[in-house]
Amino acid sequence: MNEIGIGIIGTGFMGECHALAFQAVTSLFQPRLRPRLELVADVVAEGAERAKARFGFARSTTDWRTLVQDPAVELVAITSPNVLHKEMALAAIAAGKHVYCEKPLALTAADAKELADAADARGVRTLVGYNYLRSPALRHIKHLLDSGELGTITYIRAAFEEDYMADPSVLFSWRCERAKAGSGALGDLGSHAVSLLRYLAGPIVEVAGDIAVTVPARPVAAPGQTAGQFTRTSEEAKIETRPVENEDIAHALLRFESGVMGTLTASRVAWGRKNGPDLELYGTKGAVRYCQERFNEFQLFKASPRLDDNGFRTVLTGPYHPDYGRFTPAPGHSIGFNDLKTIEVAHLLEGIAEGKPLYPDFREGFAIEAVCDAVLESAERRAWVRVEGGN
Amino acid sequence: MNEIGIGIIGTGFMGECHALAFQAVTSLFQPRLRPRLELVADVVAEGAERAKARFGFARSTTDWRTLVQDPAVELVAITSPNVLHKEMALAAIAAGKHVYCEKPLALTAADAKELADAADARGVRTLVGYNYLRSPALRHIKHLLDSGELGTITYIRAAFEEDYMADPSVLFSWRCERAKAGSGALGDLGSHAVSLLRYLAGPIVEVAGDIAVTVPARPVAAPGQTAGQFTRTSEEAKIETRPVENEDIAHALLRFESGVMGTLTASRVAWGRKNGPDLELYGTKGAVRYCQERFNEFQLFKASPRLDDNGFRTVLTGPYHPDYGRFTPAPGHSIGFNDLKTIEVAHLLEGIAEGKPLYPDFREGFAIEAVCDAVLESAERRAWVRVEGGN
Amino acid sequence: MNEIGIGIIGTGFMGECHALAFQAVTSLFQPRLRPRLELVADVVAEGAERAKARFGFARSTTDWRTLVQDPAVELVAITSPNVLHKEMALAAIAAGKHVYCEKPLALTAADAKELADAADARGVRTLVGYNYLRSPALRHIKHLLDSGELGTITYIRAAFEEDYMADPSVLFSWRCERAKAGSGALGDLGSHAVSLLRYLAGPIVEVAGDIAVTVPARPVAAPGQTAGQFTRTSEEAKIETRPVENEDIAHALLRFESGVMGTLTASRVAWGRKNGPDLELYGTKGAVRYCQERFNEFQLFKASPRLDDNGFRTVLTGPYHPDYGRFTPAPGHSIGFNDLKTIEVAHLLEGIAEGKPLYPDFREGFAIEAVCDAVLESAERRAWVRVEGGN
Amino acid sequence: MNEIGIGIIGTGFMGECHALAFQAVTSLFQPRLRPRLELVADVVAEGAERAKARFGFARSTTDWRTLVQDPAVELVAITSPNVLHKEMALAAIAAGKHVYCEKPLALTAADAKELADAADARGVRTLVGYNYLRSPALRHIKHLLDSGELGTITYIRAAFEEDYMADPSVLFSWRCERAKAGSGALGDLGSHAVSLLRYLAGPIVEVAGDIAVTVPARPVAAPGQTAGQFTRTSEEAKIETRPVENEDIAHALLRFESGVMGTLTASRVAWGRKNGPDLELYGTKGAVRYCQERFNEFQLFKASPRLDDNGFRTVLTGPYHPDYGRFTPAPGHSIGFNDLKTIEVAHLLEGIAEGKPLYPDFREGFAIEAVCDAVLESAERRAWVRVEGGN
Repeated sequence: MNEIGIGIIGTGFMGECHALAFQAVTSLFQPRLRPRLELVADVVAEGAERAKARFGFARSTTDWRTLVQDPAVELVAITSPNVLHKEMALAAIAAGKHVYCEKPLALTAADAKELADAADARGVRTLVGYNYLRSPALRHIKHLLDSGELGTITYIRAAFEEDYMADPSVLFSWRCERAKAGSGALGDLGSHAVSLLRYLAGPIVEVAGDIAVTVPARPVAAPGQTAGQFTRTSEEAKIETRPVENEDIAHALLRFESGVMGTLTASRVAWGRKNGPDLELYGTKGAVRYCQERFNEFQLFKASPRLDDNGFRTVLTGPYHPDYGRFTPAPGHSIGFNDLKTIEVAHLLEGIAEGKPLYPDFREGFAIEAVCDAVLESAERRAWVRVEGGN
Repeated sequence: MNEIGIGIIGTGFMGECHALAFQAVTSLFQPRLRPRLELVADVVAEGAERAKARFGFARSTTDWRTLVQDPAVELVAITSPNVLHKEMALAAIAAGKHVYCEKPLALTAADAKELADAADARGVRTLVGYNYLRSPALRHIKHLLDSGELGTITYIRAAFEEDYMADPSVLFSWRCERAKAGSGALGDLGSHAVSLLRYLAGPIVEVAGDIAVTVPARPVAAPGQTAGQFTRTSEEAKIETRPVENEDIAHALLRFESGVMGTLTASRVAWGRKNGPDLELYGTKGAVRYCQERFNEFQLFKASPRLDDNGFRTVLTGPYHPDYGRFTPAPGHSIGFNDLKTIEVAHLLEGIAEGKPLYPDFREGFAIEAVCDAVLESAERRAWVRVEGGN
Repeated sequence: MNEIGIGIIGTGFMGECHALAFQAVTSLFQPRLRPRLELVADVVAEGAERAKARFGFARSTTDWRTLVQDPAVELVAITSPNVLHKEMALAAIAAGKHVYCEKPLALTAADAKELADAADARGVRTLVGYNYLRSPALRHIKHLLDSGELGTITYIRAAFEEDYMADPSVLFSWRCERAKAGSGALGDLGSHAVSLLRYLAGPIVEVAGDIAVTVPARPVAAPGQTAGQFTRTSEEAKIETRPVENEDIAHALLRFESGVMGTLTASRVAWGRKNGPDLELYGTKGAVRYCQERFNEFQLFKASPRLDDNGFRTVLTGPYHPDYGRFTPAPGHSIGFNDLKTIEVAHLLEGIAEGKPLYPDFREGFAIEAVCDAVLESAERRAWVRVEGGN
Repeated sequence: MNEIGIGIIGTGFMGECHALAFQAVTSLFQPRLRPRLELVADVVAEGAERAKARFGFARSTTDWRTLVQDPAVELVAITSPNVLHKEMALAAIAAGKHVYCEKPLALTAADAKELADAADARGVRTLVGYNYLRSPALRHIKHLLDSGELGTITYIRAAFEEDYMADPSVLFSWRCERAKAGSGALGDLGSHAVSLLRYLAGPIVEVAGDIAVTVPARPVAAPGQTAGQFTRTSEEAKIETRPVENEDIAHALLRFESGVMGTLTASRVAWGRKNGPDLELYGTKGAVRYCQERFNEFQLFKASPRLDDNGFRTVLTGPYHPDYGRFTPAPGHSIGFNDLKTIEVAHLLEGIAEGKPLYPDFREGFAIEAVCDAVLESAERRAWVRVEGGN
């Protein structure tokens, strides 16, 4: 079995998630290309060291540039804050490395396009970490569509809502800052929803968007507090607040290339909601509802002349759905969030080994950003906006 | 159209429910025999007067014997406390009246048998108010069984759980008193579940039961409090308590005449539960789950060689289910609890007019009580008990 | 008790529903003004006669003008096809009658305004039959908002989706004809959703809409077939089709006077969906989800510092929710669709008797139509549109 | 970090599941004792080789006795067919190895006791693989009980139902054979339910059981078919059938040492059900419902004087629930079935390293078997049976 040297930049939530996926993929998928955890980079030395020890990387570094240039690193995984994606990805591409970048690919569609173009020019493989696309249920929904079992799509809705900033006392963090995060709920959560919409219903060509900041200012971290730690603030901390610079909510009307209508919702202030995307899809022969909070099942309605025994079916995922059987042969037993990342990594390794096209690559990542940008532009101009490029 | 004179005994929850059903049935079902609200009896004169005025009875009385003997009353509806059912029903039968009695029919199976025998001897029609049998969804489930679509039953479970006495501070009432209520949760709630089990799966011939009193004593009403009003008690009221005499919970293993296994549950101390019965039924070709709290739908699984798109279907009731269309032609719009009573009354009037057998008549009411009694006997003897009679 | 003479125009689905509600309201609500079913009108003589006999109207007629002018008729209920609402309502108003009109009030906002103005000028009471506003759960949600328990609204969504025209072989009917129905899914279903949105979140001042006809042409009824009977067509019937003239789906972005964002969806081609509206409402202190298909419950999330035991609560309706206790004292027992109409009629009678303002009156009906018209205009102009009037 | 040499016997569903868990545990839990995959045994040489390669075992063997005796193996994991557990576990104990055995521990309680006694005598650590005990939601339920938030238990129900043998054409396999499987649904599935019941509510001291074989005979595999492969049989295969020797369904009434009542259900013929256990637990202050098919959530009702906003809460699991945060910091993102096994292995390694008691050890495994055996004995004797030993 051939190996591929992996370098991971970042050791936070997603850095760990990547490392776990690279560890698990060999036994679960037996890929032709076996990942070798070569190098991990974190700006904080202890973080890098700890990750090295924990996941068994061969080496660690505090300098991501070192990682990108390292000859033993053939694939660079970028899990750093969004604002850094561009510079890191460009450097990795320039060094001829394949690049696996967390979503959103970049802060703007223009930046995303620059990355996609650079990767194409250099001929490296790229993948963006829209891991909800790996859900066995979702992929089966795609299969139902492709096989014609749901007829043609009449309309589709996707929403991604969480409550991580629903409490007005959640501290100001880089996520609220346009220069560091780009957009707010739309980029962080809505981009996942866009990835699903495009996967299932194709290119989005026109949008009308609306956005709102519902918590205009948030408390700044007191000395000793870490911004973004989502801790309830002390009275002291409330002394100072800072204006939130990007949207808490986004809504959009969509038109697909096919003419199909759709809608998009993103929110980080939706009390009670912990994960997304949610999906509703109506076709001429049936309908599907799907909620990521229960991603081990989906709701399926199949039109039938018989009415008295028909209704939405709660289909539990099982080994007859894509890749579920890699984890367990028993239906209804559930796979987990981390398993979705493992499927993503399996796809990545298979694509590199086999020369198969990867999905969603940077080109697709750009297309997703182009939709998000168009929504923001539409919200500002209060007009329908064509989605430029990315299709 | 012919008329039938109705006399209703009792003006509480169920007395009102009966009166509403007799009022509504004419327009909704256009029965051959049109009910005429002739006489209402309540031991409290104001109650009787109020009901007369509210529902448009021709007359009222404080003496149920007067009602039973009244020549204009052809059908006697009994909605008084359970302890009074027997005497009233016997008197009505003796007077040659048809009798419509609220469940449970009597405090013991022996009493229920006496009533059934008396009615048979006198040749009057009888009906017991197990109105959950009228649910369109439930009757469709019966149809699915009869038509063989679910195969043969492998096992069945029914439970009826509420929380109306879950709070230990709920006052002692006649429901806790063996002499007035007979059994506790079993008679009040479990009998409904038994009615469903027999309706769907036939006679129950052997049981093993277990019961418990989980709140051994309850506060006695303070002066000015009405026993059974389910009010949280003041400290003062707690000074005195009285032992609860019948079961808060009952569980039983069941064997049907067909050999099929089943279980029965009744509880009045199930926090969060507001209504029953719940039903689970497995057959050789499918399965059904049903919960009275959502009685406008049922869950249906139909076995199929295809696994990837199968699951329990949430079937919403519609005009293609028995009697739903009497209320509205639009599926998924829901009928209400009172509507079930109207369907029951329609069945009653139709049966009397057409000479059709009524279900569940006093004979069936006896059979249901026989099962409940056997459960109690089994719980006491700690042994399996044959259900005597009633099948 | 005083009486009020009722005249109902139309004997279809809604005509029957009105008659049932007027019958049931007296016992259930004991209104000061007792309805007397005076006159029923249907263009088909047998229909009028049948309704008279079935519901006990004093008289029937085939001429609605006769009904409107009848001195014994004090309240005119209009349940005819939408295209006739305007002429009938104007005639009733001119005759000094109170008017209870089914939704949508008129085919256009301009017509609705004309009706509202006429009613104001003549000083009669009016009510539009948006009966989902009567749902005990929904009214409790309104109460939660008014009491501040959910904080201030951050955003709100409402959708009304059914599948009654999802099958492309459903016949062409007056509902597909602009001249007879006005708009399609938006007017028929979406207007209900708008009524909820305004009830809960106040005036809507700006919209961006998008609509689509997803079944461009439908088969015309064969000889002997009744258009609109939703029968699957024979091959023969398919010989001829007719273009559908109004939208199968509508989506809109909304801005409320308060600045709050919202969305609106209406669809008559949503396979598997049988009723609406559905509602999602997020506030600064909690969230609510509600689906009319399960209108005897709602989902409630209340923000709390404690995370480990929090989640959406499935609250079953009970006597502690508005008007539920009129029907049954037992929680979780469910009321039905027809009961909502009875509550509506109780409100109507109470308002007339007490001189209380009615909600939603024709002015509100106009406001709802104004929103719908703005959505259609926006969809045509592909631009945000101010909602003119109606607020 | 210290290491411990692992030997796994068996490479089927559970053998793979164990190997994956031992692989994943180091990064996720950073245990003091790091597992080293030393040796894997499978009677089929290719199977052993394949597993060695796939999971990275140092060596493989076709002889489990070799594995048990191997000096580098310190912990023996037994995932072979149930009939072999006893001999293997005894040999491992005799060799002084810690033993991690899949459930059920043995075919009879007597055998289980022999194993528990042997382990105690030899002083080795043991663990039985009842991995559903590791569910974060379930452990939080236990915490709610222990903290008194649900009051004292009034009653509890557990059921484990699947449909893997619901189709009568499923082939006869070792699972149907008493000599190889012991009991049927009870041992395979019901034992899981018993493990939960004991975990939450303590020792079970008396039972009344009932069992049934609902598919009396099953087709024998045709030449070339593998028994137990759950393939629909050809006509040819149906020529020969073989009687099923153990129960398809088991029901039992339970009494706990505390006096609390409960019930137990196990079924392998429950169409539509894919996993268990399901749990319902009522206490004096609240209630819980839990279903393994949606084990990333649970339903919680907390009694409150306020009725209008109360109901069962759907609590999604998050990092505030036991061990969830090991996998992901984000609530509502779900962990998977394999993750439960990893938590189990973490507990195992921690217990061995720290000298902490393991749960459920062989003594507990015996107690669980003692309950199952008592149910079977009760079903045969048609009488309540004391649970002997195991408490």
